[in-house]
Amino acid sequence: MATDNIDPTARTLPDFNVAMVQLTQHLDTINRLSPDTAGQNRLVYSPGWIAAQGQLLQWGLDLGLNVTLDDYGTVYLDLVGSTQPETIIATGSHMDTVVQGGPLDGLYGVLGGLQALITLKQTLGQPKKTLRVIAFSEEEGSRFPTTFSGSKHYARIENTTGLKDKDGLDFDSARTAAVQQLTGPGIQRTLPKLPATFTELHIEQGTRLAAAQVQIGLVAAIVGQRRYTVTVTGVANHAGTTPMAQRHDALQATVQFINRLCLLAQSVSPELTFTVGELALTPNTVNVIPGKVVFSVDCRHTNTALLDNFETLMANTAELFTETDLTIHVSRWANIPPVQLDQQLLAQNANLADQLQLKHLQLASGAGHDSQIMTQVTPTTMIFVPSIQGISHAPQEATATPDLLAGVQLLTASLYRQAY
Amino acid sequence: MATDNIDPTARTLPDFNVAMVQLTQHLDTINRLSPDTAGQNRLVYSPGWIAAQGQLLQWGLDLGLNVTLDDYGTVYLDLVGSTQPETIIATGSHMDTVVQGGPLDGLYGVLGGLQALITLKQTLGQPKKTLRVIAFSEEEGSRFPTTFSGSKHYARIENTTGLKDKDGLDFDSARTAAVQQLTGPGIQRTLPKLPATFTELHIEQGTRLAAAQVQIGLVAAIVGQRRYTVTVTGVANHAGTTPMAQRHDALQATVQFINRLCLLAQSVSPELTFTVGELALTPNTVNVIPGKVVFSVDCRHTNTALLDNFETLMANTAELFTETDLTIHVSRWANIPPVQLDQQLLAQNANLADQLQLKHLQLASGAGHDSQIMTQVTPTTMIFVPSIQGISHAPQEATATPDLLAGVQLLTASLYRQAY
Repeated sequence: MATDNIDPTARTLPDFNVAMVQLTQHLDTINRLSPDTAGQNRLVYSPGWIAAQGQLLQWGLDLGLNVTLDDYGTVYLDLVGSTQPETIIATGSHMDTVVQGGPLDGLYGVLGGLQALITLKQTLGQPKKTLRVIAFSEEEGSRFPTTFSGSKHYARIENTTGLKDKDGLDFDSARTAAVQQLTGPGIQRTLPKLPATFTELHIEQGTRLAAAQVQIGLVAAIVGQRRYTVTVTGVANHAGTTPMAQRHDALQATVQFINRLCLLAQSVSPELTFTVGELALTPNTVNVIPGKVVFSVDCRHTNTALLDNFETLMANTAELFTETDLTIHVSRWANIPPVQLDQQLLAQNANLADQLQLKHLQLASGAGHDSQIMTQVTPTTMIFVPSIQGISHAPQEATATPDLLAGVQLLTASLYRQAY
Repeated sequence: MATDNIDPTARTLPDFNVAMVQLTQHLDTINRLSPDTAGQNRLVYSPGWIAAQGQLLQWGLDLGLNVTLDDYGTVYLDLVGSTQPETIIATGSHMDTVVQGGPLDGLYGVLGGLQALITLKQTLGQPKKTLRVIAFSEEEGSRFPTTFSGSKHYARIENTTGLKDKDGLDFDSARTAAVQQLTGPGIQRTLPKLPATFTELHIEQGTRLAAAQVQIGLVAAIVGQRRYTVTVTGVANHAGTTPMAQRHDALQATVQFINRLCLLAQSVSPELTFTVGELALTPNTVNVIPGKVVFSVDCRHTNTALLDNFETLMANTAELFTETDLTIHVSRWANIPPVQLDQQLLAQNANLADQLQLKHLQLASGAGHDSQIMTQVTPTTMIFVPSIQGISHAPQEATATPDLLAGVQLLTASLYRQAY
């Protein structure tokens, strides 16, 4: 594949530091829209969410871009191409957040993409192909029991409907009311055409890049996820009067079982993530031997065979542990398959990163992203930047400014390479 | 020590089976006083508790016994002695229960004692020394944050005061109101003299007697108890994006720590009971690595040095596990010393059991009892009978009738030996 030389210090490109100032200002503007809440709470179709999408639409209009709003509230800002306007080179991420989320998850990809578009427009003018920045309406599943409803609608995979949030409010009513509020002059109301490629810029939300002291992560795949509920049933009894040898202690059995699972996970693959996040004892009383323990298992890997392997080992171990007065029952309730992202786009980004002298490594994403939806309909790739201490889904979520800059630089180079 | 021959089949003694019928009737009468509740709920000074103590007082009056009620609501029924009335041979247990408790815990000792007194009175008439049956007001700590308030008052050790239950109701008001309701003609209102000996008949609430297929447990000691809160602090993080090698998982550390404690407990002594009954994760979410775990440790043994030994080992292990991003903190909040019960009374009961051809074994009580208070002021012993499957503090609590009978037989022989 031919690689054009990108010289980010060429006289026709502005100082990226100036671009960073504007990106920082844009991030602050959106993040300050709901100043009284702990962390970011842009739940889909909430007032804070509407204000954010409204601001983005306004920036698009102010920039003279082609501005579209679809029926699910996803915003599309297009810099229309000159010679191949029907070919769309897209970037973006999601506008919603989790409850008490951080300032960068999703928003960095949206505004980083906008910044790349602004930089290219200001210095190089109109591209040959159309450049599109997307702010998907919803990805996190933090309000309604659904995820990726925005990207699933754009990809024509599913039109989410018929849900209620925990206050009993109806998804469809909330959606139409919010879209109605956002609609205005100059804003097209349609479902835009699918792009030729999609690149999502995102914070890593993990610790690999920081640990390796590398600024750029090039994402080859998104892990598959399996989730289980494990129920360990023993016999509750008096903590003082029941001799140790006569106990069927569900908590002690759980300790041994989790210990074994941990070793099994390691043996299957050091990359297999194995997490017990939720756990509850019954009766959960200081002086009563626990009669029952229920806990969750969350397993992720890019390789389906390895996930199957661990699942079989866990089932076998549960059977091994089970006796008359102590049973272990494993029940799977989530099975999300892994996805491979586009290798050519990744290789192109690796090349561009080299040219920009940005250290990079290849990794899988351990979290779900809109890219796992988009990859089903168009060549898709992701660019990660480091997360400080891997913190995400919390107000303390942060990335050093030079790293935010590195991501935007690479994205800009990639969009230039694809659209100009 | 001289041992009189006791022949339970002598013509002057009634059929013990007849005695069992009456005991069963008495147990049913008290247990049916609150038929609409799940299990027994005779919380101290509650209406159900007042009804039960009231019924016991009435039986005492009907039997022509000397009936006393003290300021804490403890009931004393005396068969006054002929030649040494000031020397009191006492038996009994507690009238209160836990929430949703069983039909025998405490009540078997009270009504079993009453049955022994009735049997002796009917067949042998007046004893030389005074025979006393006691129903302590409160032992379980199931309503107010206190335990053994009845026996502590009788033993002149402490006058519990100034407490509130979880509904904010005041102990002293509840106490005086209940005692006022129970007061009536023929009921003496005083704090009786301490006894020369105290024997408590009780269900084992454990599994040793049933496992050994032995009807009688002779209690040599009551275990000391230590209770701790352990706090394991790691770093909460994303379950998918945090590589296994970069985690500070508080739950996994807890698993390893509890595993180690279990082995340490075994190495200190097979008789040391070690129970983790309560445990909570933070944030307790499926896809978040637990950042904190808090759990309880309940340890019991009759030997203080062994309890100290385990405590030291646990502290050392906590320190061993502690690193920069993972700390384990152990905090002790209960330290109840073990007590030895009277060896002469135990030996006498062993002898009597042999004469009655009742299989017996010596054991420590793993649960607290009024006897651990009484032993501080008078020679005290306990007689245990088996619990089916060791179940207690639950409606399913049960003991086979022949075993209930065996306990009453031995108690009767002991009271005869001491008072006639």
